[in-house]
Amino acid sequence: MKKLFLSIIFVLFIFCPAWAGDDLPTPASNKTAIDLVQSHADYVWTLIAAALVFFMQAGFAMVEAGLTRAKNAINIMMKNLMDFSIGSLAYWAVGFGLMFGATSTGWFGTNGFFLSDFSPGGDPWVLAFWMFQVVFAATAATIVSGAMAERTKFSGYLIYSLFVSGLIYPVFGSWAWGGLFNGKGWLEGLGFIDFAGSTVVHSVGGWAALAGAVVLGPRMGKYTKQGKIKPILGHNMPLAALGVFILWLGWFGFNPGSTTAANKDIAMIFVNTNLAAAAGAVLAMFTSWIKFGKPEVGMSLNGALAGLVAITSPCASVSPLSAVLIGAAAGVIVVFSVYFFDRIRIDDPVGAISVHGVCGAWGTLAAGIFNMGGTSLKIIAVQFLGIAACFLWVFPTALIMFKLIEKTIGLRVSPEEELEGLDLIEHGGNAYPDFEISAHGGMSPAAAPVESEASILSVFAPKKAEAT
Amino acid sequence: MKKLFLSIIFVLFIFCPAWAGDDLPTPASNKTAIDLVQSHADYVWTLIAAALVFFMQAGFAMVEAGLTRAKNAINIMMKNLMDFSIGSLAYWAVGFGLMFGATSTGWFGTNGFFLSDFSPGGDPWVLAFWMFQVVFAATAATIVSGAMAERTKFSGYLIYSLFVSGLIYPVFGSWAWGGLFNGKGWLEGLGFIDFAGSTVVHSVGGWAALAGAVVLGPRMGKYTKQGKIKPILGHNMPLAALGVFILWLGWFGFNPGSTTAANKDIAMIFVNTNLAAAAGAVLAMFTSWIKFGKPEVGMSLNGALAGLVAITSPCASVSPLSAVLIGAAAGVIVVFSVYFFDRIRIDDPVGAISVHGVCGAWGTLAAGIFNMGGTSLKIIAVQFLGIAACFLWVFPTALIMFKLIEKTIGLRVSPEEELEGLDLIEHGGNAYPDFEISAHGGMSPAAAPVESEASILSVFAPKKAEAT
Amino acid sequence: MKKLFLSIIFVLFIFCPAWAGDDLPTPASNKTAIDLVQSHADYVWTLIAAALVFFMQAGFAMVEAGLTRAKNAINIMMKNLMDFSIGSLAYWAVGFGLMFGATSTGWFGTNGFFLSDFSPGGDPWVLAFWMFQVVFAATAATIVSGAMAERTKFSGYLIYSLFVSGLIYPVFGSWAWGGLFNGKGWLEGLGFIDFAGSTVVHSVGGWAALAGAVVLGPRMGKYTKQGKIKPILGHNMPLAALGVFILWLGWFGFNPGSTTAANKDIAMIFVNTNLAAAAGAVLAMFTSWIKFGKPEVGMSLNGALAGLVAITSPCASVSPLSAVLIGAAAGVIVVFSVYFFDRIRIDDPVGAISVHGVCGAWGTLAAGIFNMGGTSLKIIAVQFLGIAACFLWVFPTALIMFKLIEKTIGLRVSPEEELEGLDLIEHGGNAYPDFEISAHGGMSPAAAPVESEASILSVFAPKKAEAT
Repeated sequence: MKKLFLSIIFVLFIFCPAWAGDDLPTPASNKTAIDLVQSHADYVWTLIAAALVFFMQAGFAMVEAGLTRAKNAINIMMKNLMDFSIGSLAYWAVGFGLMFGATSTGWFGTNGFFLSDFSPGGDPWVLAFWMFQVVFAATAATIVSGAMAERTKFSGYLIYSLFVSGLIYPVFGSWAWGGLFNGKGWLEGLGFIDFAGSTVVHSVGGWAALAGAVVLGPRMGKYTKQGKIKPILGHNMPLAALGVFILWLGWFGFNPGSTTAANKDIAMIFVNTNLAAAAGAVLAMFTSWIKFGKPEVGMSLNGALAGLVAITSPCASVSPLSAVLIGAAAGVIVVFSVYFFDRIRIDDPVGAISVHGVCGAWGTLAAGIFNMGGTSLKIIAVQFLGIAACFLWVFPTALIMFKLIEKTIGLRVSPEEELEGLDLIEHGGNAYPDFEISAHGGMSPAAAPVESEASILSVFAPKKAEAT
Repeated sequence: MKKLFLSIIFVLFIFCPAWAGDDLPTPASNKTAIDLVQSHADYVWTLIAAALVFFMQAGFAMVEAGLTRAKNAINIMMKNLMDFSIGSLAYWAVGFGLMFGATSTGWFGTNGFFLSDFSPGGDPWVLAFWMFQVVFAATAATIVSGAMAERTKFSGYLIYSLFVSGLIYPVFGSWAWGGLFNGKGWLEGLGFIDFAGSTVVHSVGGWAALAGAVVLGPRMGKYTKQGKIKPILGHNMPLAALGVFILWLGWFGFNPGSTTAANKDIAMIFVNTNLAAAAGAVLAMFTSWIKFGKPEVGMSLNGALAGLVAITSPCASVSPLSAVLIGAAAGVIVVFSVYFFDRIRIDDPVGAISVHGVCGAWGTLAAGIFNMGGTSLKIIAVQFLGIAACFLWVFPTALIMFKLIEKTIGLRVSPEEELEGLDLIEHGGNAYPDFEISAHGGMSPAAAPVESEASILSVFAPKKAEAT
Repeated sequence: MKKLFLSIIFVLFIFCPAWAGDDLPTPASNKTAIDLVQSHADYVWTLIAAALVFFMQAGFAMVEAGLTRAKNAINIMMKNLMDFSIGSLAYWAVGFGLMFGATSTGWFGTNGFFLSDFSPGGDPWVLAFWMFQVVFAATAATIVSGAMAERTKFSGYLIYSLFVSGLIYPVFGSWAWGGLFNGKGWLEGLGFIDFAGSTVVHSVGGWAALAGAVVLGPRMGKYTKQGKIKPILGHNMPLAALGVFILWLGWFGFNPGSTTAANKDIAMIFVNTNLAAAAGAVLAMFTSWIKFGKPEVGMSLNGALAGLVAITSPCASVSPLSAVLIGAAAGVIVVFSVYFFDRIRIDDPVGAISVHGVCGAWGTLAAGIFNMGGTSLKIIAVQFLGIAACFLWVFPTALIMFKLIEKTIGLRVSPEEELEGLDLIEHGGNAYPDFEISAHGGMSPAAAPVESEASILSVFAPKKAEAT
């Protein structure tokens, strides 16, 4: 008995540090302590990634302003500031609950509004996760801004912004990503691959942009009665390029941050993201060089974005070589897509429909084709289904929403205001009062007086086309 | 005895991996190893946050340049570059020691100058902590730049910058934050809540800005003899908006980084920071819309900043719903405050006094009112005391300093230089030589020849008002 | 025996949580688990640092565009976008293998091309490391862009960019850094100190820039036949300043990220980086003030960059006080160096040769002189050897490359295109179509018609000098 006692004492003595209170955890508490440090790293990584994605708002604002005219620059700043600000509040109030709240149907969530599940003593992870998701919701909204630039009424834009961040985006998001936090969306239940949102974020934005551009009709002077397309030049290329660099940076939060965990997977996602962007820029430049005779700056910048959008879905499940191929294809696709939409007279001043809608669809498909774990007809079919579901939910809903806005508070500014610029009449300002502005504000003198023809999609927008 | 020996051997055998040398730590050394990894995460987080706060210098520079005239843009770049550069050196030499050095009185520290406590074998945390603090010190200095824009002599500005980063800011900082590192400030001893510096950083900057604007007097042409206020338009709105986006990004370092630790608290701080900024922008926009008839871009941008400044103090101790309310209130306050200071003829070209001084005070008060842990008259009284102490230390000290600079090397440029622009005469340059500049450089033709009246605060600045 | 049994049972009971399966690791698995969390922190830190270094591309683009004329701004955006994009692909295909592949000679690596060593089941660290290295390779390439601005044929630039990122940079890199991953370079074998690349990145870029500027010859109108130097003004100073702020931010990834590990060393590196930049800016400003009579913005901005370049090599091995001295010296050196190259008629529009080449050499030398671990003639001799080896490898190789490009596809645009601007003829665009551009596009009227004289280094570029 004495020996047993001694042996216990001895063992206790050897291991006493393990019981010495808070300072020295036992092996069991080591596990807890290690998990805690890992979770701290997860918080840091996810929130820094969220900050980078937030900064994409600046990138979108600079790209959009750079590729449009000086007379509308204030309006574009206001739209980008407000779609994030209103979007943040809408996503806090409603969107997050719809997207990640508990769901029995798999079609949308039904609790968590106003972050109401969060209490001071609750798990703060919901807040970190919300922060990462709100910047995505705002990205979807801001994409539309570009396609509708230079002719949209500001009040109409605010209403639209509220609905995209609060309703259209979260509902589709719940189908594909709802299970990340809670519940389970029907689309993810089928095995749909969209790691960081080529479809969930970018195509949602792109198809809403298409609806907006169709309802609005083209800018005055863009298409002549004689069937000619008149280019309307962007007013500040360094600003547009800065915007693309900011977006590229932001995508290093967007894609690898979608792990919402500090782990080794982020390395391959970084590399794939970067290679796809590089390949997209290079291929878009050469495509524009061959097709138009010059290495064109707008196309090259959009090529980088096209590569980034395309790799967003497959970034975690394809090899770096595949990332190069996916980005390169996106760089070619975006040039032809921009050209195509211009031919069919859908006026998208910055190419948002092509970059986000079309290349988002391409990337989602590519996630099935280039999947490192192997592919199959079933995988590809599910990817197609997700792409189609996105279009079928977003485009008609957005079309109805824009039509409703048009019929009520109005969606398009008057022709006088469009000629004068939105800055003066909508905002009472002038973005560049110290500089002499060219007589036609970026419009070639010949183009200015010519009225635009009806869009070939005039079934959607006959009155606008007449008005312009 | 043999049994005891055997039992020991057995136990040793089972746990031998724990003693197998460096590769396999004992439970006690696990604790040390886990703490080490956590501390690495703390270093990474604190230093990345410092980098984000550093980037706010670019944000301030862009906001200030965007909201002022093209002819002073080089001067504004130089001021922002130099207040950070000189501020870094001043804070290294003197400021950090005053703020965080050992103190027996609670009024300022007395060692640690030139980072002299640091030795190659010492604790590197002091360096990480210094890095996070130096970017705060420089922020306080740079805030003043905006309110004094377009008329301050560059040499006078450099002297001022040295004193704010080296003396005015660190002394107040030691009262409120000295105990974070070493010593204990008298104000924190009373329970003053200012988590990330609504008062310590922003109000310090804001009240120094007020002193500067008062001593300088208004810009020529801003206020007419007939009692009219002539707006002087900023020259580049996309630049100003870019600056606000950069500042918003930087605030994700400013507020959550103030934990100086990688932990779960940062999630709520991120969310609160974002919601307050969003609410500030939206409310300022609607307030300007109602008050002036248009959704004004300068007010909306300042609204986002007002929300950010206001949430800086309470970000770690209020709920997300409170953050929305605090930011929303700041968005309304800032519009009326800008209007008020214009009425009383204190010419603050960018609204720095309202954004940083007034909304900093509001946020500090809100930290008492909305405190999640409950509030009381005592808490609110301490918050008031801190707000008052800040004003009573900063405003008179800065006023004396600016008066001394005015009497010695001079604080304001000559009327000729002010008309010509500071870029040419102070720096021998031209910010935009390739562009045609409008005749009046952002000043309406009618305003240019009119001399401004005396400020209603002319007791402080009688000569300047006469000179202009 | 029973007692032994009991004692074992007792011990097992106490420690049972340690064997309770996956949830509760044994002490041995704690070690693995702790290492895993640390490695996650390393991934996060290294990749965030890579993202910051990537963003330096935007900084270089803004600095270069800001310091040159409006008529070439699109060309500068395209060059900066493409040197990163083509550089990324070249470094993926060839450069990384040359630099970090296995080597028996110490002169270059021979495997790892196309990231071929990476397999889905392999160690993902190679991908994180590649990501950090590719942004360095692109930095070396982009430095050259500035010195060759406003007169280089775009197609020639693309070829050059491919060779720098794919060959010139990686080969020198393998000498100094090859052992970081695999193999061992001959220069690092001698103890050469270049922590983050004052020589490996910046001098490589700087000496290639020198070769490019020499082969190209000066811009038209820069040097008159009467021996006068005509300043050609940059068109956008806020853009240039924004670029410097972005670069400063990026350097917080460049230098501390070069640990490629989340550890405490990054604190001192941050502090040293910041202090050297601040001292460089302040000293360059005062030097320009004394030498030219005004605190000049271009020199002050370049002073910050000079301090950053100089501290890049010694950042991890000198005290903060030494960092101040190293940066201050760089700030003085850069002003005289820019002046010197202008005197000898090497036209470097942005000062890239002085900032990156000369101050890179200074910093590398300083790493030997100020070494915290003590210095010696041997250490300094090795630093000199590294500096010399860099120049002797890069300058002649780049000279030959540029000469070959000149003889084949052409390196310089025609005089007509140079006068008209590269944007129109190379890219079919106009960076600022909405703004009225001054008649002479940043060139003083007197300077425009004057033809430049032969460079005093005309042995290298006789034909160009005649052509201009």
